[in-house]
Amino acid sequence: MAEERLVIVGLGMLAMSLASSLKLGRRKEEKNYKVYGYARRKEVAEKAVKDGYLDGICATPEEAFRTGSIIILTLPVPVICEFIKKYSSYMQKDAVLTDIGSVKGCIEDAAMEAEAAFIGSHPMAGTELSGPDALVPGIYDNASIFIVPPEGAEENNIIRIEDLWKAVGGKTLRIGAKEHDSLVAHTSHVPHIISSALALSVLDEEDEKLKAQRFAGAASGFRDTIRVAASSPRMWKEILSNNREAVLEALEDHEKRYYRMKKMIEENDFDAFEKEFAYGGELIREWRKAKKC
Amino acid sequence: MAEERLVIVGLGMLAMSLASSLKLGRRKEEKNYKVYGYARRKEVAEKAVKDGYLDGICATPEEAFRTGSIIILTLPVPVICEFIKKYSSYMQKDAVLTDIGSVKGCIEDAAMEAEAAFIGSHPMAGTELSGPDALVPGIYDNASIFIVPPEGAEENNIIRIEDLWKAVGGKTLRIGAKEHDSLVAHTSHVPHIISSALALSVLDEEDEKLKAQRFAGAASGFRDTIRVAASSPRMWKEILSNNREAVLEALEDHEKRYYRMKKMIEENDFDAFEKEFAYGGELIREWRKAKKC
Repeated sequence: MAEERLVIVGLGMLAMSLASSLKLGRRKEEKNYKVYGYARRKEVAEKAVKDGYLDGICATPEEAFRTGSIIILTLPVPVICEFIKKYSSYMQKDAVLTDIGSVKGCIEDAAMEAEAAFIGSHPMAGTELSGPDALVPGIYDNASIFIVPPEGAEENNIIRIEDLWKAVGGKTLRIGAKEHDSLVAHTSHVPHIISSALALSVLDEEDEKLKAQRFAGAASGFRDTIRVAASSPRMWKEILSNNREAVLEALEDHEKRYYRMKKMIEENDFDAFEKEFAYGGELIREWRKAKKC
Repeated sequence: MAEERLVIVGLGMLAMSLASSLKLGRRKEEKNYKVYGYARRKEVAEKAVKDGYLDGICATPEEAFRTGSIIILTLPVPVICEFIKKYSSYMQKDAVLTDIGSVKGCIEDAAMEAEAAFIGSHPMAGTELSGPDALVPGIYDNASIFIVPPEGAEENNIIRIEDLWKAVGGKTLRIGAKEHDSLVAHTSHVPHIISSALALSVLDEEDEKLKAQRFAGAASGFRDTIRVAASSPRMWKEILSNNREAVLEALEDHEKRYYRMKKMIEENDFDAFEKEFAYGGELIREWRKAKKC
């Protein structure tokens, strides 16, 4: 495996977690990467070098795209698309571009338009926190990483991106952009919408006395159910607006399941409800076992 | 404050948490209670005495109802109703009966029919675990406890039940049974239904390849959103079937909020979506601050 010069563009939580794992991790494969970084705020990159998480800094996006044998864009979805269009012409002949965006179709389209050597990535990892100081060194350990090659991508480039994620402990899965976007609409985007609607339907109450009762009545189960609805509104606007069709389809899948349960309650068929609820619980336990979580 | 003989009927997690707090807690008020217990399985009660959580055992439900100055029923909702009907005639003249059932209307009806001196309770406390060994001594500390007196209940009896929960650190709130049942339909019952429907709409997939992708794509956000859907199907059947009307009304409140958000996505009005999602997040932070969670 030839040494790679990885340039991370954008130095937030997931970027710094990747850098810290590669620089401080103990896996043999991690030694294969020199790690450079670019951040709009220069002091962030300088601190990362000082902390030992980066081997060096790129001063501009142009330099970042020129320097890397692998360039990874860890930016909001619209900015990823913008950077691909603006800067991918600066890439070296053998360099390969990737990203960590939560939707892949619009990013792949931008890469195809720019004729960039691009392989999408989407690590299933995150916390509620953001920013470089929130880094979690082992965050990719055992995490599922979707690898999203455009049609006709070079096999060798796909493998180089898979190797990067495997080096930090990730389990890679190849998937097409359209399949990916439908998948995350179900597993992540719909849960965020539902959680937010649920939080609002419980907590948004004009009557002060009723609001106080609602606040008192909501307990730890509620807290977990709505946790993701406290995440960044800007980010969720960007994600959903770039995955609108798949999200609307996934919402309809959810509605079918929801109305099936509601009908059991309406029709007083609580034996059927018990079975349905139990089946959901079984699937949850099967999933937890598979994910070890 | 006169000493009370508290008899706990049913010795599960919440019951034993109450007993352990009263027997081992350091609050002055906790010393005011002698604590007796009845469990269908005698060895459970014997172990609780051995562990120092109970002062003594009642051998039968009749003895439990005869012994207590306060009797608290910590049983599934249908069994609470059954015990009230069967045994409340055994209560002493000044004794007062309470419970910890998650719905209050049907239990209050049973108590009124039996002409029992009854004040309902509903502590907002719990974990995923059940059984006497899952006890959590501080579980009622700062927990909201709904106190649900039937119309015409004696003020002195209400205060005695409030004092019991305050003794273990609970914050009591008075509420009527109908109001209570509508409240928990919103804050707890609907979230359980939505979570279960969500778990099923993501994980119940016949196609093996797609199922593997869904399992991989679901991450920590999903795990929290659906956590409550892994709880006891039997218990949830019992709760929902005893609160059907309030649950159907609360489901419709949730639907209104949900369709409002969905329409924003359909109409490509992502600025409105961002505002709505942000408002949900603000309410969540306001609630967390109020609940200190």
